[in-house]
Amino acid sequence: MSDADFLSAAIAEARLGLSEGGVPIGAALVVSGAVVATGRNRRVQLGSAIRHGETDCLENAGRLPGSTYARATMYTTLSPCHMCSGAILLYKIPRVVLGENATFLGAEELLRANGVEVVNLDSAECKALMDAFIAAHPEVWNEDIGEEP
Amino acid sequence: MSDADFLSAAIAEARLGLSEGGVPIGAALVVSGAVVATGRNRRVQLGSAIRHGETDCLENAGRLPGSTYARATMYTTLSPCHMCSGAILLYKIPRVVLGENATFLGAEELLRANGVEVVNLDSAECKALMDAFIAAHPEVWNEDIGEEP
Repeated sequence: MSDADFLSAAIAEARLGLSEGGVPIGAALVVSGAVVATGRNRRVQLGSAIRHGETDCLENAGRLPGSTYARATMYTTLSPCHMCSGAILLYKIPRVVLGENATFLGAEELLRANGVEVVNLDSAECKALMDAFIAAHPEVWNEDIGEEP
Repeated sequence: MSDADFLSAAIAEARLGLSEGGVPIGAALVVSGAVVATGRNRRVQLGSAIRHGETDCLENAGRLPGSTYARATMYTTLSPCHMCSGAILLYKIPRVVLGENATFLGAEELLRANGVEVVNLDSAECKALMDAFIAAHPEVWNEDIGEEP
């Protein structure tokens, strides 16, 4: 399975979130070549302030030992914000593959400065999902990144 | 109400968490002199990888506009880890008051570098709670901060 294949699992979550009325961002946690959990932004669905794609994925993965995170890659459709990057640093996940960072540039430099490998697949599909959502629901998107409407 | 008074609300959550068998770390979000939400580490209680004191508090507060976070102070019994510091940065919370950082030093420098005021009340009560828990359950504590048991 390639990085693009695993990103597809995150994109499927983003599309599921969109179908629920949510922000179309998804994530997948892959350990030793297997998807151990997926997640999606559930701000709208759960009225949540902390369920971004990556954090929802980590929560769905449940309590894992550090040795598992140490072999993991986090796939996410969008550049991870400060909270999600912080979660990646907390658990010492060594690699992040993201769909795009044209819509939103997260804390990639912080990740790299802490030794995390960050790969951007520059996915037109991920960007199109976000462009359409932001055009339709700018106030939800701004809330999701801590900006004023 | 003083910072010490508001920290007491976070300590009460830490003690509640301890009574549930959880990691004794609590938090309170204060806006314009009023506690709008409290939270506690619920790794053990909910089998959660993302419910630290501060993130549980933010989740309990629900979806808030950026203008509310901009007037908030996050009180926490322990120095905030990378994930929780990232959540504070995401929502542009301008001030953090912590109980202690002798047990664990989180991402305080990252917060300060991003303009967040960080105040350490150096609470013996907070430190005693953590010292006792870590002595009794070192494996849970190490899991909570992404370290090997």
